[in-house]
Amino acid sequence: MAPKIRKLNLTQVSEWDDGQLCRKDDYLATEEPLEIRIGDQPLSVTMRTPGHDLELAAGFLFTEGLVQSREQIISLQPVVPSEGADSGNVVQATLTREATPDLAKMRRHFFASSSCGICGKASIDAVRSRLLTAPNSDFRFDPELLVGLPEVLRSAQDVFRRTGGLHAAALFDSKGALQVLREDIGRHNAVDKVIGWALMIGRVPLTESVLLVSGRGGFEIVQKSIAAGIPIVASVSAPSSLAVQLARELRLTLIGFLRGRRFVIYSGDERIGKSQHQDGG
Amino acid sequence: MAPKIRKLNLTQVSEWDDGQLCRKDDYLATEEPLEIRIGDQPLSVTMRTPGHDLELAAGFLFTEGLVQSREQIISLQPVVPSEGADSGNVVQATLTREATPDLAKMRRHFFASSSCGICGKASIDAVRSRLLTAPNSDFRFDPELLVGLPEVLRSAQDVFRRTGGLHAAALFDSKGALQVLREDIGRHNAVDKVIGWALMIGRVPLTESVLLVSGRGGFEIVQKSIAAGIPIVASVSAPSSLAVQLARELRLTLIGFLRGRRFVIYSGDERIGKSQHQDGG
Repeated sequence: MAPKIRKLNLTQVSEWDDGQLCRKDDYLATEEPLEIRIGDQPLSVTMRTPGHDLELAAGFLFTEGLVQSREQIISLQPVVPSEGADSGNVVQATLTREATPDLAKMRRHFFASSSCGICGKASIDAVRSRLLTAPNSDFRFDPELLVGLPEVLRSAQDVFRRTGGLHAAALFDSKGALQVLREDIGRHNAVDKVIGWALMIGRVPLTESVLLVSGRGGFEIVQKSIAAGIPIVASVSAPSSLAVQLARELRLTLIGFLRGRRFVIYSGDERIGKSQHQDGG
Repeated sequence: MAPKIRKLNLTQVSEWDDGQLCRKDDYLATEEPLEIRIGDQPLSVTMRTPGHDLELAAGFLFTEGLVQSREQIISLQPVVPSEGADSGNVVQATLTREATPDLAKMRRHFFASSSCGICGKASIDAVRSRLLTAPNSDFRFDPELLVGLPEVLRSAQDVFRRTGGLHAAALFDSKGALQVLREDIGRHNAVDKVIGWALMIGRVPLTESVLLVSGRGGFEIVQKSIAAGIPIVASVSAPSSLAVQLARELRLTLIGFLRGRRFVIYSGDERIGKSQHQDGG
């Protein structure tokens, strides 16, 4: 089944401009629910922008700790509803037997662990306990390259320019070249899509990549990046307290307010500089 | 127990500015998990900014359809973990017997309903089936007042100015006066906090209020507003396709790109104008 890309919807709207009202055409970013199933068991429903759904499912399964490697995913496929409706909003994952979770047990475990107190520290400990690869401590990234990344992101984003409505996540290699960019109405989904892309082609852990996100750097963005072994995460906006705390404890480099020729390093200063001990800028 | 307001965290960061690196102090918006329980049964965990947690819980229970009125909430209280740790990240709700959901049954029901196909239409039908009050069709709001609301929001937001990291949601009355403003790292939480505030003081349905949100207008923002009977929702950014579709089907007025002296009306044009059939601007 060919993937259907429905990232844009054309609609008629009214624009009020300094007292004048007129009708015009406008593009909207598409938002639809996606259900991810493991076998015939529903796992989650997320509101997302259609497109790259299999990557989204792969990234979600991996960054949420349901699978630890690509090999544990036997297949990922879109499901056509039984009535013959062609919604394309369900993805079914078949996992190896050892990876297939007992969903009822997962729920009990989640409840059990949260009943003894829930706090930022417990959230960080949960990420640490699932850590597969510590962020690459030898990776260096040139600050002069870093300040150029947002412009690459913007010029590669096709939907945002027309709707203003989508978040983007992009991976760059150690020389600042764009590896992949994905857009979604949800920030977390955009990150899951790029990580899912990398997972399915065998590039995880992403030990020599920089992740740039268009929005804020919250806890879950850092958590997903750590799961994928990404050493540097940059955002054009502010990080949260818990994102910074997580990045510091697990030694990920976290950049915020990457705008113009300026940025703020919240964690992991040592990775920002020229590689091989050249003089830094 | 006195509420602890921990909306800001002070930390040391490095700022790179055109090749110069310096250390400085910076404020971070606080992000911590909050668990909502019904009795001793965990219902949900959300990453939120501490403060107004009881309003958040009340708003969440109401906008997600777990309670239909304030009267079904017997009590809401913070829970101190059993070990004596003082996390303040759990809220326990006690509901009337008829409102207390069978959580296991809810899960089965959710799975059953989603297994026959999941799509935007099903999402809208689910909101329609829970509709308590249709949005007030007689409400009118002056466009000259509307364009002034973002400035009121900005000047009332205390945390955002220092961190750049928080979303805001605010309710305004029919004359454009600010009723309540709440900030949170999550857009949905900010909306749940203002609706929870209104619910707990008996002001729901909010038939004569305008909701302004700082971010985008997605499906869940519109869904929560419809649950609370809010007739007009405005955002400074873009709405999604499904938000527009939901607003049109359930006759809510949805405004986007409210910036300067300009905005776009995606749904419900008839509410934008002077009241009592005066000449519109």
